Amino acid sequence: MIGPVLPSAGALRPLGVDEVRLTDGFWAERVSRNAAATLPHCLHWIERTGWLRNFRLATAGGLDAGRQGREFSDSEIYKLAEAMAWETARSGTGVAGLDGIAEAVLAAQHADGYLNTRFGQPGQRPRYSDLEWGHELYCYGHLIQAGVAALRAGTAEAVGIAAIRVADHVSAEFGVDGRTGICGHPEIEPALVELYRVTGERRYLDQARLFVERRGRGSLADIALGRVYYQDDLPVRGRTVFAGHAVRELYLAAGAVDVAVETGDDKLLAAVIRQWERTVAARTYLTGGMGSRYDGESFGEDFELPPDGAYAETCAAVASVMLCWRLLLATGEGRFADLAERTLYNVVATSTALSGRAFFYANTLHQRVPGTLPDPDAPSPYPVGSVRAPWREVSCCPTNISRLLASLGGYVATTDDRGVQLHQFVGAEIRTGAVGLTVRTDYPWRGAVAVRVTEPGDGPWRLALRVPSWAGAATLVTPDGVRQVPAGGYAEVERHWRAGDEVCLELPMQARWTVPDPRIDAVRGSVAVERGPLVYCAESVEQAPVLSLDSVTVDPATTPVERPMPGLGPDAVGLDVPASVAVAPESEWPYGRAPVGERQPVGLALLPYHLRANRGPASMRVWLPTEPTGDAGAGR
Amino acid sequence: MIGPVLPSAGALRPLGVDEVRLTDGFWAERVSRNAAATLPHCLHWIERTGWLRNFRLATAGGLDAGRQGREFSDSEIYKLAEAMAWETARSGTGVAGLDGIAEAVLAAQHADGYLNTRFGQPGQRPRYSDLEWGHELYCYGHLIQAGVAALRAGTAEAVGIAAIRVADHVSAEFGVDGRTGICGHPEIEPALVELYRVTGERRYLDQARLFVERRGRGSLADIALGRVYYQDDLPVRGRTVFAGHAVRELYLAAGAVDVAVETGDDKLLAAVIRQWERTVAARTYLTGGMGSRYDGESFGEDFELPPDGAYAETCAAVASVMLCWRLLLATGEGRFADLAERTLYNVVATSTALSGRAFFYANTLHQRVPGTLPDPDAPSPYPVGSVRAPWREVSCCPTNISRLLASLGGYVATTDDRGVQLHQFVGAEIRTGAVGLTVRTDYPWRGAVAVRVTEPGDGPWRLALRVPSWAGAATLVTPDGVRQVPAGGYAEVERHWRAGDEVCLELPMQARWTVPDPRIDAVRGSVAVERGPLVYCAESVEQAPVLSLDSVTVDPATTPVERPMPGLGPDAVGLDVPASVAVAPESEWPYGRAPVGERQPVGLALLPYHLRANRGPASMRVWLPTEPTGDAGAGR
Repeated sequence: MIGPVLPSAGALRPLGVDEVRLTDGFWAERVSRNAAATLPHCLHWIERTGWLRNFRLATAGGLDAGRQGREFSDSEIYKLAEAMAWETARSGTGVAGLDGIAEAVLAAQHADGYLNTRFGQPGQRPRYSDLEWGHELYCYGHLIQAGVAALRAGTAEAVGIAAIRVADHVSAEFGVDGRTGICGHPEIEPALVELYRVTGERRYLDQARLFVERRGRGSLADIALGRVYYQDDLPVRGRTVFAGHAVRELYLAAGAVDVAVETGDDKLLAAVIRQWERTVAARTYLTGGMGSRYDGESFGEDFELPPDGAYAETCAAVASVMLCWRLLLATGEGRFADLAERTLYNVVATSTALSGRAFFYANTLHQRVPGTLPDPDAPSPYPVGSVRAPWREVSCCPTNISRLLASLGGYVATTDDRGVQLHQFVGAEIRTGAVGLTVRTDYPWRGAVAVRVTEPGDGPWRLALRVPSWAGAATLVTPDGVRQVPAGGYAEVERHWRAGDEVCLELPMQARWTVPDPRIDAVRGSVAVERGPLVYCAESVEQAPVLSLDSVTVDPATTPVERPMPGLGPDAVGLDVPASVAVAPESEWPYGRAPVGERQPVGLALLPYHLRANRGPASMRVWLPTEPTGDAGAGR
Repeated sequence: MIGPVLPSAGALRPLGVDEVRLTDGFWAERVSRNAAATLPHCLHWIERTGWLRNFRLATAGGLDAGRQGREFSDSEIYKLAEAMAWETARSGTGVAGLDGIAEAVLAAQHADGYLNTRFGQPGQRPRYSDLEWGHELYCYGHLIQAGVAALRAGTAEAVGIAAIRVADHVSAEFGVDGRTGICGHPEIEPALVELYRVTGERRYLDQARLFVERRGRGSLADIALGRVYYQDDLPVRGRTVFAGHAVRELYLAAGAVDVAVETGDDKLLAAVIRQWERTVAARTYLTGGMGSRYDGESFGEDFELPPDGAYAETCAAVASVMLCWRLLLATGEGRFADLAERTLYNVVATSTALSGRAFFYANTLHQRVPGTLPDPDAPSPYPVGSVRAPWREVSCCPTNISRLLASLGGYVATTDDRGVQLHQFVGAEIRTGAVGLTVRTDYPWRGAVAVRVTEPGDGPWRLALRVPSWAGAATLVTPDGVRQVPAGGYAEVERHWRAGDEVCLELPMQARWTVPDPRIDAVRGSVAVERGPLVYCAESVEQAPVLSLDSVTVDPATTPVERPMPGLGPDAVGLDVPASVAVAPESEWPYGRAPVGERQPVGLALLPYHLRANRGPASMRVWLPTEPTGDAGAGR
């Protein structure tokens, strides 16, 4: 089986990218565009920036003078190699550029397995001299994940060889008798466990467990952002909620789940689940985005979720999907697939332009000023922008999205001893053992998901379809009749199946107003609109000239009206809601009495959040203020 | 005359620290504590951290190995020297440690005037090789300001000599025929103009003007924060609002005003005033704090003023007071003194603990979690904390506060051809020319300000007392009778004065509810309480156990009740307001229907914001949510 996460234990067994073939619809289009546009785009940029050339310079011994890129640029090459390997497995055809990358990487590896273009050569700093910021083990993690993909896909042999050599090097260098350090950026932990799953080499699992257990004991330097930045403030088992740099935390949690599953460490698994629960209840954006602070790209405190300050990094969303999938496999609980769905549709799908060639790094929920288009011919120095950039000096997100999309078939469905579970609704052909299924759906635009059994397998088995928690109640049409199913679980049909049997899940797709918990101070007095799994937003470019997003209010007693948005896709659904605007008189000081401004009725056009910023710079908001209740003040 | 800002032109002429003697009350206590506690505290820490020793090492040629501190640590020595020089002038007695600092500084200066302990010596990077981050010219600015203070106070001659030598060096090195660069951190601009005012050397003014005009033309590198971070994105004349790093921007604006005033450049002055107006209308906290982003310690967009993300750096408040004073002197308009008052009482007074030995760097308006006490024996690596720290690795604020407090008498009163203007209400004895005045007041606790004429001078003249814009209307009791005066201007009495004549300004001191502009999204649905010039807040340590600041709401139709707070000062006024709390049922996901929680009435205790965090770690909020209007949602 070919898939990114293949645990040896757990409630559910994943189906691989060779078992779930995406055929059409929302994600199939994005997966195809990833192959056709994003992979060549990334290959172009890692050459253009010199980041791949660094490996050739390292091989030739000429690195000191000519090295390009930040300290973690090696990882971009590895993430792209991983994406290309999954794409090879998915499509069954070779991907241009992968062999060249594989050869360059292996050629640059030192005889003892060490591999990094930033450290350890004449004129460079010594190996492992800056564990806080050097990212050497972080880069290894991505190399090893690329190696896992290559080994499972049966391609790019050199990447697999380099990954095993680097894992052996790390196990010797950082093992129980070696250096006691950890990397400032977790990532190697899940990678080592997965390589153990491929190779059966127990020492990779042991090393991953060592790294998980060593963290949180203050071995890294204290810094202005605090040790919480790299999760070195508290041991993983002692944490109660995700904190610090969001990508670091989520990769670490994914690795901790992997270690827990493979070692039968139920307490460690339970600790991560508790952290996840509180994080989802108090530190997650409506979009599923995680990390509310620009400062340190980090989680905030509970209920610190400013829409305009939302960082919600694309890579944190990728990491969150990785974590959710591991937790789903371990527990079988649909809530993990719920968050994965929300994150996929509202952050992962948002980050990439419809062209497949420009990307958001941070995913704000409120864009106050339209901003400007970035230079299309130079890497943007900025992580934040109102419009997607083709590449950045810190360009972690494009390759991360790319590797997720190329392996997305591996995040859709599972089996257990009772049958097959469908967690994400995608047009697909699924084949596992003697069972074959076809999924047809226009989700997320329409609510019907039809599953037809093409090969019935032997004996009775149970087909389970997730009912998203947003759905309230859904309707399941079985081959025999109609049945209500509860919210937030799985709708199940167990029977002796025949070829041609069809089950249809119908999800309620009317738009809904969403009210935030009153403890989320930053959106008090505001509401959002959702429809199906999609969060909606208002963009300035679509509004009447009179309508400023700074002064618009809505009334959640009204009903949004659907409309097509042909410019953003044949099936895309927009929404219109009644609203009003007021022009408050300008004042010299913005505090005092409540302003009295006459309100004027207008129509407010909403679009799916993930389609924002495809029509040039625009202001935007997800949270819409409700009518103010008038002058609250008793005096100035 | 001895004062920090002595322009040769402008609407008003400042009175110096030798003309305004603070006698008693709010600021006199803080100025005394600055001398008794803060100056020795800072002297202790610049020795303990090795930052002063760097100068001795430079003199001995041993810097490379032993240098301590960040790239701008030299400036702390200069700011402390400046504070000590002003304190010498104010108190008329020498300040321990100043001579030692002065000698160490002068001894480390190169023969050509260059002076920096971080660059230019064997093993260090070359001079001016990192204008973006090196802070060499920034440090010069502080040295020159210390020199100005020393020259005017007639003390620490070596500092004055070093300052002139460094100004000569800069004028040669960066003049019209020299390097065309600017410093990543503005600060030298106002310093050079003030040295011109002391010495009459025109080339210092020319150099300041050159630096102001050169900025904003992209000569500094683009960075992740954008060139706006160091105001190199747009020329000063082309800016419409303050942006980027707040301290940098405000020092630059102060320097631009100085250049404009000395060169008669009304357009430049008008440009800065326009920027100030929009910044005050849209980018300033209720406290007067400026800089709403942790990220880059910077101004946000218009109305981006999150209370929990408020950076509102102490040094930005110092810089804002410096700028307001310059604008007041140039224009004579009370609005600049209004903002200075707000900033002095609610940021400058907040930053320092009642002990005078611990400081806030950032001044949040919402502390979500109580946090922990910092290590009293080590510099804190963190700029942000819930409790004041004795010192920080970046410790710009203590010495900045100290130099402002030591020269505070120079920010109180002015004269013009018609008389005397009192801008800040402090217990004081004022003497200018043949006129003597005594000011008695318990401000800001009580609203009466009594001014007695002790020496009447010759002929008729006008006494003007500022009526703060927060006051609405005030009452002025003249020697002859009673008169109403308008809000936001100056209450004036013109007459032939006799010794013993007394004027009393009575300001309305009932507490008031303050409503924010609806465009400030982050505090929608909330109100604040102010009394006189003071902003109030709620602190968890003062509340009933049932009361969580996360779930409290208030009703602005109620009336706050005053109460004494003897633990925080004999005159301190606290406020009690009726409130209610609700415990919302915990939910797994914080978005959906509005929660229905039963509300319970409680009393909420408020204290002046500047007195917060003097009783250990506590959660705190300035903006208080009003009663929610119930379930706004039509469905989940």
